[in-house]
Amino acid sequence: MMEQQTNPSFVLRAVKDVVLEDRSVPTLKDPWDVRVQIAQTGICGSDVHYWQRGRIGDFVLESPIVLGHESSGTVVEVGPAVKKLQVGDRVAIEPGVPCRHCEYCRSGSYNLCPDTVFAATPPHDGTLSKYYITQADFCYPLASHMDFEEGALVEPVAVAVQITKVGNVRPNQTVVVFGCGPIGLLCQAVSKAYSARKVIGVDISQSRAEFASTFGADDVFVPPPKPEGKDNCAWSEELARIMKEQFDLGEGPDVVLEATGAEACIQTGVHLTKKGGTYVQAGMGKENIVFPITTACIRDLTIRGSIRYTAGCYSTAVDLISSGKIDVKRLITDRYKFEQAEEAFELVRQGKESVIKVIIKGVTA
Amino acid sequence: MMEQQTNPSFVLRAVKDVVLEDRSVPTLKDPWDVRVQIAQTGICGSDVHYWQRGRIGDFVLESPIVLGHESSGTVVEVGPAVKKLQVGDRVAIEPGVPCRHCEYCRSGSYNLCPDTVFAATPPHDGTLSKYYITQADFCYPLASHMDFEEGALVEPVAVAVQITKVGNVRPNQTVVVFGCGPIGLLCQAVSKAYSARKVIGVDISQSRAEFASTFGADDVFVPPPKPEGKDNCAWSEELARIMKEQFDLGEGPDVVLEATGAEACIQTGVHLTKKGGTYVQAGMGKENIVFPITTACIRDLTIRGSIRYTAGCYSTAVDLISSGKIDVKRLITDRYKFEQAEEAFELVRQGKESVIKVIIKGVTA
Amino acid sequence: MMEQQTNPSFVLRAVKDVVLEDRSVPTLKDPWDVRVQIAQTGICGSDVHYWQRGRIGDFVLESPIVLGHESSGTVVEVGPAVKKLQVGDRVAIEPGVPCRHCEYCRSGSYNLCPDTVFAATPPHDGTLSKYYITQADFCYPLASHMDFEEGALVEPVAVAVQITKVGNVRPNQTVVVFGCGPIGLLCQAVSKAYSARKVIGVDISQSRAEFASTFGADDVFVPPPKPEGKDNCAWSEELARIMKEQFDLGEGPDVVLEATGAEACIQTGVHLTKKGGTYVQAGMGKENIVFPITTACIRDLTIRGSIRYTAGCYSTAVDLISSGKIDVKRLITDRYKFEQAEEAFELVRQGKESVIKVIIKGVTA
Amino acid sequence: MMEQQTNPSFVLRAVKDVVLEDRSVPTLKDPWDVRVQIAQTGICGSDVHYWQRGRIGDFVLESPIVLGHESSGTVVEVGPAVKKLQVGDRVAIEPGVPCRHCEYCRSGSYNLCPDTVFAATPPHDGTLSKYYITQADFCYPLASHMDFEEGALVEPVAVAVQITKVGNVRPNQTVVVFGCGPIGLLCQAVSKAYSARKVIGVDISQSRAEFASTFGADDVFVPPPKPEGKDNCAWSEELARIMKEQFDLGEGPDVVLEATGAEACIQTGVHLTKKGGTYVQAGMGKENIVFPITTACIRDLTIRGSIRYTAGCYSTAVDLISSGKIDVKRLITDRYKFEQAEEAFELVRQGKESVIKVIIKGVTA
Repeated sequence: MMEQQTNPSFVLRAVKDVVLEDRSVPTLKDPWDVRVQIAQTGICGSDVHYWQRGRIGDFVLESPIVLGHESSGTVVEVGPAVKKLQVGDRVAIEPGVPCRHCEYCRSGSYNLCPDTVFAATPPHDGTLSKYYITQADFCYPLASHMDFEEGALVEPVAVAVQITKVGNVRPNQTVVVFGCGPIGLLCQAVSKAYSARKVIGVDISQSRAEFASTFGADDVFVPPPKPEGKDNCAWSEELARIMKEQFDLGEGPDVVLEATGAEACIQTGVHLTKKGGTYVQAGMGKENIVFPITTACIRDLTIRGSIRYTAGCYSTAVDLISSGKIDVKRLITDRYKFEQAEEAFELVRQGKESVIKVIIKGVTA
Repeated sequence: MMEQQTNPSFVLRAVKDVVLEDRSVPTLKDPWDVRVQIAQTGICGSDVHYWQRGRIGDFVLESPIVLGHESSGTVVEVGPAVKKLQVGDRVAIEPGVPCRHCEYCRSGSYNLCPDTVFAATPPHDGTLSKYYITQADFCYPLASHMDFEEGALVEPVAVAVQITKVGNVRPNQTVVVFGCGPIGLLCQAVSKAYSARKVIGVDISQSRAEFASTFGADDVFVPPPKPEGKDNCAWSEELARIMKEQFDLGEGPDVVLEATGAEACIQTGVHLTKKGGTYVQAGMGKENIVFPITTACIRDLTIRGSIRYTAGCYSTAVDLISSGKIDVKRLITDRYKFEQAEEAFELVRQGKESVIKVIIKGVTA
Repeated sequence: MMEQQTNPSFVLRAVKDVVLEDRSVPTLKDPWDVRVQIAQTGICGSDVHYWQRGRIGDFVLESPIVLGHESSGTVVEVGPAVKKLQVGDRVAIEPGVPCRHCEYCRSGSYNLCPDTVFAATPPHDGTLSKYYITQADFCYPLASHMDFEEGALVEPVAVAVQITKVGNVRPNQTVVVFGCGPIGLLCQAVSKAYSARKVIGVDISQSRAEFASTFGADDVFVPPPKPEGKDNCAWSEELARIMKEQFDLGEGPDVVLEATGAEACIQTGVHLTKKGGTYVQAGMGKENIVFPITTACIRDLTIRGSIRYTAGCYSTAVDLISSGKIDVKRLITDRYKFEQAEEAFELVRQGKESVIKVIIKGVTA
Repeated sequence: MMEQQTNPSFVLRAVKDVVLEDRSVPTLKDPWDVRVQIAQTGICGSDVHYWQRGRIGDFVLESPIVLGHESSGTVVEVGPAVKKLQVGDRVAIEPGVPCRHCEYCRSGSYNLCPDTVFAATPPHDGTLSKYYITQADFCYPLASHMDFEEGALVEPVAVAVQITKVGNVRPNQTVVVFGCGPIGLLCQAVSKAYSARKVIGVDISQSRAEFASTFGADDVFVPPPKPEGKDNCAWSEELARIMKEQFDLGEGPDVVLEATGAEACIQTGVHLTKKGGTYVQAGMGKENIVFPITTACIRDLTIRGSIRYTAGCYSTAVDLISSGKIDVKRLITDRYKFEQAEEAFELVRQGKESVIKVIIKGVTA
């Protein structure tokens, strides 16, 4: 009887201090709440960042939280207001439930809601438990031929869908994506699924670039090392010139999606973007960097930030996977059992080139 | 007979070397061409920049050019294809005629056309002559109650119209404008004419800020000096906090229009902008500056450059002046005869706080 | 003690059957709920329509409802989740609270939510009671210099704000508004406040047109009677030609806002709109009408419907009144006490030209 | 020598009166002009309409014109201003060259330019000649693996690209297209190439619907005949209900593209469209039809007309064909020699279900 109530959870107690704990089974509080039994959970860089550093921006770990926010699972309980979901439904979980009452929520920008309850962002618990409580409209039914691993990877696909939405990626455009990690790769694949004419992936890792060229990229670029003594800004500008020439980009790509956060990539990306084009900052690195502001101004660029997801991203991501347009399972390089969660995190922390996406199976039995 | 053909012109021969010259009267070459006798010309910072430095970005003075590009005048000759203008029409001149054939021109972004013939941008002659040749659709008839001084000032108003268009300034928004020079002042006035709820002007000059508060700004801010030893980035962030508090801006203004190009203003402006808001870079200073890129990213900002004008800007600017919504004549602090052009340029060069807009009358007789 | 609990209400029991009733004081049910003591309520055509016909579209009166939905009042009780409002605040009430969970709500189109609780739309009670329960974010604080009559008229101004938003009314445009009743007049005034260059009001009533010309319209048009035997469609097309000529509209206005629902106005409006322009259907009349579809197609028109309000409309409406840009009190032609509610409704029903807006004071004591 | 100058042309002399004529070889007049030797020309319904009726809307045949406007060919002469094309280039020809000087042209809506020289629209000659003069920027180089038949069919693909652009068709949307003729089929294929989730084609012809289901449509619908005595409007509304149910469309498709112009399709299409969705009128039939205006209003629909093409449509169409996303050659059911042009036109006139696209080879030798 006791056992029925256990809720094994992977808890971050303090910086570099994680543990498997038995927590009480959470209960529904709002009529729209649902309880999901977690099936698979992908690990994201931000999870590792909280583990190693205890903070991202203004979000600081001050008390223990459960980690994890890229999950799929099965609905096991629904509140009385829930109409569109029922017990037994297999779902992908959008990990942030906004307040629904602020001006951001009301105007369709719920990704900016300051009161969002976001999984594994302090002080909110994440999804690496047996059970997770969320709200019905943040659960997306999986097509019957999708498995739970695909369901967990809906999250990074939805991030890429938002980035391409913010970048207004359209058919027949040329798109350059900096970064061939999971988000960069998915930005490339989503752009291609949207009928971009040419998608170019950029990474300093040859092996990652090669993988990209078999996934969503038509071409890849591995930047040469900066010549000694060369000024950073001048080198970034030169890299942009090299890329325009090498890939026959004319005035530059219509859209640049930056998914690394590295200063050199940001500078190169801005210099690369076509006049009147769009540059999206999706990667996060240093807070302040040297930036070619005059180029941005006189080229009439649109520079956008991208954060989380807005309405439609999750359902689009489910469709991209379900229709076979994006084969997300190819991203999964390593699979772990729930009990091995720390080992899985350690693997991601090491940042090997060969590791793309690590996924943790939910508690069984 | 000889005298009928003279075309006195204010020519920049080389860096810091200007002269009044008699040039031949230009002739129509294209069926859509018109010849305008110049009546009034405002001086812009870029004119002075070419005079003092000989270049702006990729545009380099390699042979003499006539200066000036903010002009009004009277149509004195029209080509055979011209239907909407006739001899005697009083007009404001939009100073850049694009190629009309490139993808930018065809898609409505003619401000980005690389083959634009732009007045007083090397190697193209400007408008500080007796006669200037342009094309009919780049001449905008003045309302009968508008004078030529107002006609010349349509140009900076059109620049401000484009900046607010790029910034998507809408009714009931809060707008902060960095800079209380001519463009900043006009951005404030245009925003107010567009029913912005609150417009705040920022300048380091107390007297300019005071003028702004009598022109288009509801409030003005003169930043306190940076405390000794304080880090630049931290100080910019603090200034943003101070402004939010002092002006009760909550999460920040909906729109920030940056018309100074100063690094501190750019940084403060980005930190100031509301989540999901728009920041427009209109001022130009250093090519590269330290920039709070992470803030831009996680706040989902839209950062736009603004350059020149697009379709509709000039006619909107004429209407804003003609309807009395913007009293541009209040900006004119100093008036010169054509023969005094160098003196007028010298005044602008000195950059005194009390000088806002200097205007030069056309050749008479 | 009994008296403290009374909640006098103006109830529609059945078609053409209204009564003043004492209902129980409503209680807060949701943590975000607030209770407002109603101060002033304007009467809208839809209120009268339910009274006389018992239905609008799919909304059918099947049990008694309280009437009224254009109200202002004072907050007298707030739920525990409410942060931005407190007891004593004077507010305008946005009358529809959406479900916040459907795809429309989540994407910022809450005006389309099928589960909205909209005041005085069956089966939901309206605001013509002493007390009304709504949610905090649908109450908008009035500026201290605004009175409750202005507060009640925020509703029709917000309707006009949504119509001009849907019509994308921008500075320097020409706008023709069909109808000089309250919504038409306010569409004219809002367009003018947004710096439209020329606003033309159209009405078959000379006196309403005259009022319009003193309110928001630069010009007005009273269509001549249709010549006997003339075909309806041909006449509409001819009226469009007459208007273009009389008001020097060239190819036509940029935007047409149709606030009558009359077939002849709809046809004329479509023929009138400039190529590439926008036509908004805001008025409602017959379900099906004869429509110039080929003109709409080859002129590349954007035809939009407008219904209710979206995020930002109410706060913009408050600002337009508060700033003095729209003097809504000039619309109030008749004032009634709460006890005279039926008399007030009867006056609106009669549809006299001299009656613009009728307003009912809240229960006193 | 005489022979070098012949320019065989298929000329419409008057209603129902066509002839093959030898015209003089046209010469370049503008520095941007190019001369193209026509290789293949598709026949469009509008060509046949001019032949049979002599007019479309305001365009009336008053003197002989060459027919044809869907052509590909080889550049044989270029003017001195032409930089991006050279003799020998194989191109698709966009058939309308706008004035480049009006407000429509300048703002990117050149499809609305009233002074466009459009092939085979009176009084302008079409492309069914040996040689055709156009301007360089309206010629689009074909990929080396594309043949001239594909080049000629770029035109209808570009029409479909504009329709989907106007309809703002986006990934993961549901799109219903009325009509399975060439334009309808291509709208279906373009929507699918843009990652629409589900595309449904509608036609009264079973065989056309079947072809659609093998081309771009996921599903097709052949409406049942209207029950005798049933009201037209009520039947249209019922058809919409039937389609929503049969295809599990919930509130309706996000986008409806109407490519028939038939009244019943228009009505059904409006009733079908989801709240807040987009309906595009692309087909042309009767000038005035009975239209469910109240539904359009309260559902907040965006109704758009679509006409010709705007910047980017042609290059996108070339890419859709070149990349293999749309196999246009499957649309070609019948091929004719230049000398058989009248026979080809007669086949199109007959409107057989089995005829989709008829194409005429250019003059050889």
